[in-house]
Amino acid sequence: MNRSRLEPLGVPNSGYEAESGGASGNRGEPSAFDRFLLKQIVGRLGDANVTVSLWDTPAEKVAPREGGVAVRIADRKALLQVLVNPELHFGDLYSAGRIEVRGDLLTLLDAAYRSLEQQSGLSGWIERSGRRLAPDLSESRRNIHHHYDIGNDFYRLWLDRDALQYTCAYYASPEMTIEEAQQAKMHHVCRKMRLAPGERVVEAGSGWGGFALFMAKHYGVHVRSFNISREQVAHARDWAKREGLDERVEFVEDDYRNAGARGTQRYDAFVSIGMLEHVGPGNYRALGKLIDSLITPNGRGLIHSIGRDRPDRLNPWIDKRIFPGAYPPTLRQMMDIFEPNGLSVLDVENIRLHYAETLRAWLARYEENVDKVRSMFDETFVRAWRLYLAGSIMAFEHGKLQLFQVLFARSGVNDVPWTRAHVYERG
Amino acid sequence: MNRSRLEPLGVPNSGYEAESGGASGNRGEPSAFDRFLLKQIVGRLGDANVTVSLWDTPAEKVAPREGGVAVRIADRKALLQVLVNPELHFGDLYSAGRIEVRGDLLTLLDAAYRSLEQQSGLSGWIERSGRRLAPDLSESRRNIHHHYDIGNDFYRLWLDRDALQYTCAYYASPEMTIEEAQQAKMHHVCRKMRLAPGERVVEAGSGWGGFALFMAKHYGVHVRSFNISREQVAHARDWAKREGLDERVEFVEDDYRNAGARGTQRYDAFVSIGMLEHVGPGNYRALGKLIDSLITPNGRGLIHSIGRDRPDRLNPWIDKRIFPGAYPPTLRQMMDIFEPNGLSVLDVENIRLHYAETLRAWLARYEENVDKVRSMFDETFVRAWRLYLAGSIMAFEHGKLQLFQVLFARSGVNDVPWTRAHVYERG
Repeated sequence: MNRSRLEPLGVPNSGYEAESGGASGNRGEPSAFDRFLLKQIVGRLGDANVTVSLWDTPAEKVAPREGGVAVRIADRKALLQVLVNPELHFGDLYSAGRIEVRGDLLTLLDAAYRSLEQQSGLSGWIERSGRRLAPDLSESRRNIHHHYDIGNDFYRLWLDRDALQYTCAYYASPEMTIEEAQQAKMHHVCRKMRLAPGERVVEAGSGWGGFALFMAKHYGVHVRSFNISREQVAHARDWAKREGLDERVEFVEDDYRNAGARGTQRYDAFVSIGMLEHVGPGNYRALGKLIDSLITPNGRGLIHSIGRDRPDRLNPWIDKRIFPGAYPPTLRQMMDIFEPNGLSVLDVENIRLHYAETLRAWLARYEENVDKVRSMFDETFVRAWRLYLAGSIMAFEHGKLQLFQVLFARSGVNDVPWTRAHVYERG
Repeated sequence: MNRSRLEPLGVPNSGYEAESGGASGNRGEPSAFDRFLLKQIVGRLGDANVTVSLWDTPAEKVAPREGGVAVRIADRKALLQVLVNPELHFGDLYSAGRIEVRGDLLTLLDAAYRSLEQQSGLSGWIERSGRRLAPDLSESRRNIHHHYDIGNDFYRLWLDRDALQYTCAYYASPEMTIEEAQQAKMHHVCRKMRLAPGERVVEAGSGWGGFALFMAKHYGVHVRSFNISREQVAHARDWAKREGLDERVEFVEDDYRNAGARGTQRYDAFVSIGMLEHVGPGNYRALGKLIDSLITPNGRGLIHSIGRDRPDRLNPWIDKRIFPGAYPPTLRQMMDIFEPNGLSVLDVENIRLHYAETLRAWLARYEENVDKVRSMFDETFVRAWRLYLAGSIMAFEHGKLQLFQVLFARSGVNDVPWTRAHVYERG
């Protein structure tokens, strides 16, 4: 996604088409070879209720079967690209409207995930560790700007209305709304950390400030929160003032890596929700060292992050268009934070399916407000974000992505929760 | 510890003295150099309430200060050995009576742990991974025989009376007895796995059969349990018959690695409590592969094991005398079981402090019954096991050892608990 999306324009020029290389030039009647290629795609989708047609079928005639989905590939180059590297090209082709989808996009993505699972299997397990991925301060700034600075108004259209949480919610009971589930997530994290009034918390990655303000408001703690997204920090500071919490919550526009340089103060707890994905495994050991330097002798912390069951690169389209430089680690990789730095893991919870539910709520709101999105961005952007949300639902539902909450303390510190029952007490 | 301990004899010949090399030969008045060495030891113990004397002080005159502990080093060689390599030699010297301790042994060990912590620090972090440790079938058989076949009557003297659990208990509330806490541990594990009546469970490492019988009795499952300790299997089979559960619980005297070869049947759950310590990191990947082959498509499992915050070798005395070939892994090392084998970690709980509590209960019973132990084994054995139990209390209290329960399922399987609240519901 290029910078055009940073300006809220309706112009259909997002830079995606620039790479398509004159798609309209090679239309015409599909050849026998085109039909052969089409068969390969249909074959891969197995017995899913998906019909796929080519450019000779007029767009207005494409209709899904009952409960199914219909796909139209609009030109020859799109056909070749999606066959050769669907993980990379499908996103751009769908966003550009060169692959059209009628019916439920999730049904199509579900079939695609099943197909990928069958092809890969586990026999060809290769460790794609991303170990060298270690963005420096300026890369991180660029990466974060790309995603988080596209406009607070845009995110407000589809995130929960109370706390603007752009991370996995916790559906303590399944009938919760997204608002309730985000509140439950924040309580869940605070209870795990056993925050007490008057304690000091350092947060790495503020988002729009919702969690820092929540901790101050509901648990009576003082928070210092680091974020390099300028738009988010501006929003968070305003919000703190409006809530009368600006004395107890400080939002610092700086990289978390500078938290140690900003004062010699120690914190009772370190917390980070949804930032580790942007840190890069090459930086984990340094992150743990930083945590060690930030927390008190009895300090503890919690890291909440998207993860993996086994190492893999990020989906290349997501990496290119949505989250440059992001990497969801395995638990083994996450241990680089703790093991070399005298930190002891107390509790790991995997709430992967809660992220699928969270994303379903976001996608539903997104569609409800899609006309407002259209008034801010071009149609390519609208489709790209729909695909990103829908694809993420499927990634969590199929177990391609996990969501880990890791609670830790210093090794050998005995002032830790005796059991986890307190997290589940009603109160 | 040599084979003499396998015979319940009171003879004071355990083979320890054989290595002391004529200790009595080099007594006599301590020299200035001996006094200098003594000072080094006292210095290491810091301000702990410990007095240390040498062989010129008669044993009967050695007495601890109020609330403290007194140590007498009985010969020059003992002095040299404990100074040069306390982790290896203290155990044998204490067991042989060449280092005598009056007062609370735990106070002395606590001071020793503090001293070790100060000396090592974290700056010299070296990965002592034990990765190559991979005992084969016959090594495992030897190792297990060494520890678990020394007599069921002996273990019955100090383990909980109801379930003979020789693994960490779970003190759901602190006032529980060891009997209650072992029952609570078994419920905790079964609830995490959500065992349902009629399901099939495979267990790796039966102990004396207590947990397999518990699962069958309280959760209505069928269990097949593998163990290579002959004494334990004989005990477990008798017990199953007495309880009328021998139709539903099968104890197989074989290595868990042969579980796949014994029938093509699949299991709903794999469980292993306190066996991973004997597997060796070099065998973890194969263990995961075996689990993958044993469980149904919706199968899940739990591994309960002693672990570490960072890689380290086992205490050399414990490795030599108590648990040959044992290795407590870090979480990172444990991931070798899961990551390459399509298994997804759902939940990790570290209940380290519960093991300290468990060991305190065991040690108290051990002392209550020490005369019965004396009637079975020689004094060296009596002291060695006291030291092993007391040292283990300190290892868990100081965070040198952890206790991890890891719950897992296949990657991408969605029939998993929605939250962990069910584990904590009263019912």
